[in-house]
Amino acid sequence: MFEVLTVKEALNTIADAVKNTEGKKEDIELSMALGRVTAEDTFSAAVVPHFSRSNMDGFAVRAQDTFGASEGMPAFLEVKDEVLMGRSPSGDINSGETMKISTGGMLPESADSVLMLEHAEELDEKMIAAYRPVAPGENVILKGEDLKEGELILGKNHTLRPQDIGALAAAGVVKVVVYRVPRVAVISTGDELVPPEEEPLPGQIRDVNSCALAAAIQSVGAHPLLFGIVKDEAPDLMEAIERAREEASLILISGGSSVGTRDVTAKVIDELGDPGVLIHGISIRPGKPTIFGMVDTTPIFGLSGNPVSALVTFDLFVAPVILKQRGMNPLEVIQLKIRAKISRNIPSSQGREDYIRVNLETDEKGQAWAVPVFGKSGLITTLVEAQGMVRISQNKEGIEKGEEVEVVLYS
Amino acid sequence: MFEVLTVKEALNTIADAVKNTEGKKEDIELSMALGRVTAEDTFSAAVVPHFSRSNMDGFAVRAQDTFGASEGMPAFLEVKDEVLMGRSPSGDINSGETMKISTGGMLPESADSVLMLEHAEELDEKMIAAYRPVAPGENVILKGEDLKEGELILGKNHTLRPQDIGALAAAGVVKVVVYRVPRVAVISTGDELVPPEEEPLPGQIRDVNSCALAAAIQSVGAHPLLFGIVKDEAPDLMEAIERAREEASLILISGGSSVGTRDVTAKVIDELGDPGVLIHGISIRPGKPTIFGMVDTTPIFGLSGNPVSALVTFDLFVAPVILKQRGMNPLEVIQLKIRAKISRNIPSSQGREDYIRVNLETDEKGQAWAVPVFGKSGLITTLVEAQGMVRISQNKEGIEKGEEVEVVLYS
Repeated sequence: MFEVLTVKEALNTIADAVKNTEGKKEDIELSMALGRVTAEDTFSAAVVPHFSRSNMDGFAVRAQDTFGASEGMPAFLEVKDEVLMGRSPSGDINSGETMKISTGGMLPESADSVLMLEHAEELDEKMIAAYRPVAPGENVILKGEDLKEGELILGKNHTLRPQDIGALAAAGVVKVVVYRVPRVAVISTGDELVPPEEEPLPGQIRDVNSCALAAAIQSVGAHPLLFGIVKDEAPDLMEAIERAREEASLILISGGSSVGTRDVTAKVIDELGDPGVLIHGISIRPGKPTIFGMVDTTPIFGLSGNPVSALVTFDLFVAPVILKQRGMNPLEVIQLKIRAKISRNIPSSQGREDYIRVNLETDEKGQAWAVPVFGKSGLITTLVEAQGMVRISQNKEGIEKGEEVEVVLYS
Repeated sequence: MFEVLTVKEALNTIADAVKNTEGKKEDIELSMALGRVTAEDTFSAAVVPHFSRSNMDGFAVRAQDTFGASEGMPAFLEVKDEVLMGRSPSGDINSGETMKISTGGMLPESADSVLMLEHAEELDEKMIAAYRPVAPGENVILKGEDLKEGELILGKNHTLRPQDIGALAAAGVVKVVVYRVPRVAVISTGDELVPPEEEPLPGQIRDVNSCALAAAIQSVGAHPLLFGIVKDEAPDLMEAIERAREEASLILISGGSSVGTRDVTAKVIDELGDPGVLIHGISIRPGKPTIFGMVDTTPIFGLSGNPVSALVTFDLFVAPVILKQRGMNPLEVIQLKIRAKISRNIPSSQGREDYIRVNLETDEKGQAWAVPVFGKSGLITTLVEAQGMVRISQNKEGIEKGEEVEVVLYS
């Protein structure tokens, strides 16, 4: 009934299905804002700085009083007072007058520049010699030079970095409207699964995917909600999905590597609401049995029970949906890539994308080599040993030893 | 008294001072472990899988029973039972017998391989025809193939990724010994500072660095402790540092752009204990007034009050110390770099490293250009507008328009 889609077709189907969803917004304190994404344009609530400040230790002057000053012919200025940090100056300066000032001090009204300490000589407490001219505005940050009141600081959909948080603080913006952290439900299915802390009986294994997917969800800035292990039967799965939909904006069902359980997952997604299952099988290895559907506005993925497959398809198909719900542009997310040569022939079928786990090694000539990690695809230790992945595009029948490849590094 | 050090000399001095510090350890749940760093070698507590499992939907067989089977000459096998998921098989198979099995099912004792469903025909409930031979071990994950009991899963000083957490869960390791998250104190000094939520009076400005440095600390995986704003006087600063030392493994003092306040910071660090101040001035712009010292085993940085300078020197000098306390090898930390051409001449003094804020633009030929962000170095908005930094090494007198440069991207 369903065609197996190419990776590109699958990504397009997913992007199309979630294109109108927008994350919920909330107002948070700056101290919690790192890595969050702005949900509104943010404007300055203040003029920054709100007075003209000195950018150097020295003397606040009227620039014209120093014009023509030199080592041989200094300008002499009367020191009226010292500007104290955090205070207004005690008064203004007239022509021929100056005030001593520290970095960050407030300029007297008529001062337009600062003569650096090292270009002045203090002749006595009341008089300095200026050995160089200064230009108007020199060594000064003018009122409003950093931000005007009402000026745009950050646009919508901007991921907050330390400097952005600093700029908001400078502007007196102590709360910021961001997208809420998406809550992503993880449901593990499989009659053979027990929680990791339990001792499995013969035929049983520990549930790996709940932990691994929860960590993968955290790694892209979302919050995992673990719904535990559910039986491989339609009523149990349906009940779990209904509960998850109340709290989560995205649902991952892991398990169902066998045809029978995959069919149960697909049937339940279809029965819960329109549009139901949109993808049932993707031409990728590992990850072929991946299911994607929408129940009303909630995206649901059915991922393989094989943890290697689940993590590879998470990165490719689930992470972009989470980033979209976080308010990010997936193009903002830069993958770390390194070019290397592959150390041996890797066969692959045309029409299918293959993801090969590799380690990087550098030979004595400085050439980087991508060395495939051996082991069956079901072994999670192969992912632990790997530093990254090499993608073989669907147009290629494998890659040959010595061919240049791009390694996407695990972060 | 102190020589201004080159960036390299400063980094060596810092590395040498902290080389014997090791972070404290703690035992945490797997669900909290993403991004944390192992403080001990971790070994498997179980055999994984602890029975031989099918890797496909099909029929558990003794491989030799299928040797020579073909489309024209199938092997006929008696279906003894079906293996239920999560259960032991109901018995064993003899020569000529098989059991139906799903992916993940437990193999009967004498079965050594699985015939895929699509290579078999179910003639009736009791008999199948096998149209292909299978090799011993085919479509099976053998007992212990993923992990042996007591096998090393992860070495010490390994940063935990989703797949590592999955492997630990598979092995029944539900707690892991990691380095504690370092607690980094931030003390802002300056008589001109008010908290961001307050309206500054003339001469006062909002404290930007507490927020910006707290975010920078979080961005490298540590926990900020804000000690607020402290007066520019030795007794106040000394008291704040003493309190900070009780809770923090690293102390940042921000502020003191003027010579007078920098001298106070240095004097206090020297008075609190040996070895005291080790660096007083680094040949870098922005960031020249940076101070570094050790009071007993606690590293203390004095960063500029200028937030641009504070954030640049944080990335260069403070972040490596935090990563060391987290148990990471700083070499593990990969900076995102892009090669581009610089869009205009940038002057620089020999003997000093300059860090130029830039944006990236791509022209119609696909060439990436690094376009310097204009504005005085004290303006935090210049950092907000920038996508990254270009470093001009101390051996160069500036860079010329069109020259190729490396842009370190802000993450």
